[in-house]
Amino acid sequence: VDGAEIVLTGTELLTGAVEDVNGPFLARRLAALGIDCGAITVAGDDAPALTALVRAALGRARLVLVSGGLGPTRDDLTRHAVAAAAGRPLVAAPELAGHHPAPVPEGAEQIENPKGSAAGFWLEADGRAVVVMPGVPWELAAMWEAGVRPRVEALFAGRPAVALRTLRTVGLTEREVERRLEPVATELEREGASFGVTARPLAVDVHLRAPDPRALERAARAVAGALGEALYGEGDADLSQVVGAAFRAAGRRVATAESCTGGAIAAALTRVPGASDYVERGVVAYANAAKVEALGVPAGLIEAHGAVSEPVARAMAEGLLARSHADVSVAVTGIAGPTGGTPEKPVGLVYLALAEAGGTFCRAFVHRGDRERVILRTVTRALDLLRVYLHGGLAALESRFPPAPEPPARQ
Amino acid sequence: VDGAEIVLTGTELLTGAVEDVNGPFLARRLAALGIDCGAITVAGDDAPALTALVRAALGRARLVLVSGGLGPTRDDLTRHAVAAAAGRPLVAAPELAGHHPAPVPEGAEQIENPKGSAAGFWLEADGRAVVVMPGVPWELAAMWEAGVRPRVEALFAGRPAVALRTLRTVGLTEREVERRLEPVATELEREGASFGVTARPLAVDVHLRAPDPRALERAARAVAGALGEALYGEGDADLSQVVGAAFRAAGRRVATAESCTGGAIAAALTRVPGASDYVERGVVAYANAAKVEALGVPAGLIEAHGAVSEPVARAMAEGLLARSHADVSVAVTGIAGPTGGTPEKPVGLVYLALAEAGGTFCRAFVHRGDRERVILRTVTRALDLLRVYLHGGLAALESRFPPAPEPPARQ
Repeated sequence: VDGAEIVLTGTELLTGAVEDVNGPFLARRLAALGIDCGAITVAGDDAPALTALVRAALGRARLVLVSGGLGPTRDDLTRHAVAAAAGRPLVAAPELAGHHPAPVPEGAEQIENPKGSAAGFWLEADGRAVVVMPGVPWELAAMWEAGVRPRVEALFAGRPAVALRTLRTVGLTEREVERRLEPVATELEREGASFGVTARPLAVDVHLRAPDPRALERAARAVAGALGEALYGEGDADLSQVVGAAFRAAGRRVATAESCTGGAIAAALTRVPGASDYVERGVVAYANAAKVEALGVPAGLIEAHGAVSEPVARAMAEGLLARSHADVSVAVTGIAGPTGGTPEKPVGLVYLALAEAGGTFCRAFVHRGDRERVILRTVTRALDLLRVYLHGGLAALESRFPPAPEPPARQ
Repeated sequence: VDGAEIVLTGTELLTGAVEDVNGPFLARRLAALGIDCGAITVAGDDAPALTALVRAALGRARLVLVSGGLGPTRDDLTRHAVAAAAGRPLVAAPELAGHHPAPVPEGAEQIENPKGSAAGFWLEADGRAVVVMPGVPWELAAMWEAGVRPRVEALFAGRPAVALRTLRTVGLTEREVERRLEPVATELEREGASFGVTARPLAVDVHLRAPDPRALERAARAVAGALGEALYGEGDADLSQVVGAAFRAAGRRVATAESCTGGAIAAALTRVPGASDYVERGVVAYANAAKVEALGVPAGLIEAHGAVSEPVARAMAEGLLARSHADVSVAVTGIAGPTGGTPEKPVGLVYLALAEAGGTFCRAFVHRGDRERVILRTVTRALDLLRVYLHGGLAALESRFPPAPEPPARQ
């Protein structure tokens, strides 16, 4: 009984109508403090069931984080259930400025809600605690930071630590990442370290775990060496941010010419605050007329090779480079599916081109999955091309992505 | 003890490194069958803890759905835990073509994995069952459909049903939706129906629950009447799809001119298969030069009113309409933040314009939240403008969005 558990309430979570974000948020925050999370339980708006689930969690963990059901619309369900599970009566709480008055279990401290009117509360006894936070994600996040985290750190002060770190890669499949890590398995074992791997489309994260920060540091160095240039960042590092920072550092600007991704590359680049410093413009050239008129692709080129072809991808990138004030342009044309594929040009085939004053790089990739995943993989691949380019220019792209024998393998 | 519970395994879920999709998937499938889900538990890769959690779930529910931990890399952890929780020994299973051989609890039936090599299994006794599926989302989804759903339906045959339905709205805040539903509260109560509301940015879903399909039908009619034109679909209906279907039905094409949303409106429209039928092109005009050169916005207009202004939004929409082959264009310019706001033009202020041959509509909106949420709300608002326009033309837009007194309220 030394870790934490999380209990989320809300019938909407149990019907799958809403995807929960509080669970991963709290789990990451616990992990960042090195606190093991033993279980996450999602409970509905049923008082006896919730009471039983909270009581069970309190029996297993030193800390139980509860979210949701604080507001008046659910009849203060969570308040009653937590009080019952802890065996305390509900009593009136002192008034908290800017908050709705509400009872708390006897002995609990109220916690301010910086972004809402429902206060949370913290109930601690015999070195164990349960804390109740609102279900609205930004209220929960603000309350965690202001009032909950410090109490959690105090509760766990002096415990044996578990050290965790996430290394993020791009451009490799899960299997490729695992193959790269095989040579360092013995070294990790020696440090008492272990890892888990999670795969998003073309973006695999390696979650390292070690008994203490020093072992973690050594393990992380070994893993980083094995991952090589595929490693783009750690922890919460976001590929769009990493690419954006590289553009800012280089003082260069980019323009995007997209067909099958339909604006998703531009949207990924501009999600980042301050993107206006390095995103010059973008064109979504869905119709062939748009490729000709807005990008200057010769109509004959489309007729001769088809819209999904290397010459058209090159012409899109070069055309936009000439028509914009950007220093580099990235273009994509492909078949996102589910229809439009042929044996020669299957669904998932995309041509990505990158043009600058010194020349143009172009490669075909075939991305697996349904339409959504093909688009996601293509966006990730485009950001990775920009990352590699900003690091080592066109030469780096050519060496990282050697021309492939036709047809390219699906990834 | 009549509903189901879900147990998800994987340490990555407990560190928040991965956001779970199997839980919401299974919860929605149970809801679609009218089966109550009592709890979702996320457990780590710790055998005794997992055994205890599965045993507890088996004590509360008629059906326990378990996902993850079937593969060899985790030492068949889930297999052992479920066998132990059910009090059965693990025994060799008959060979299943195309699947890795693996033991199952005595008395369990193996379930084929249509998309992988790890078979699942179903263990039933005394009218209760536990089923174990792989953790890879597409393998789990395929196995559910092919081998699990029929067994679940048979297990629950003849039970009293619970009927569920989701009605989806756009353009209203959660509070506005709740206010609209107040007048039908009595009617819902008469049907024994209840509802929950979940809010995404400017898109609120109403989850209705009734004791039987007829009561649900009557309740849904009452709710739909109260929601009026904000209701855009039911169940899994997606706003991009609804707008796309309306474009296809009208035989019209659209072009997008985006500043602060950076391509996100175009990306939302083109997420939908077949979007090439009605998305003609898009321009991401981040830099002012792009607004002038690619959209024909007079440079003097930007100087006189600023890039974030009604005249510039109108000029962007009209300029793109003239330069493209689209029948209607939508343009946006605004301040997504976190920087760039002023007292007169705060972060979240956006001007949305829609132009067609018959004229141009333009309105200012102020959207709440951080950069990501301002962009999301603006995209949703743009799709809603297109939806309203396709339904009733510019006149419908003018009547749905009457000119607001300055400054517009934050939404």
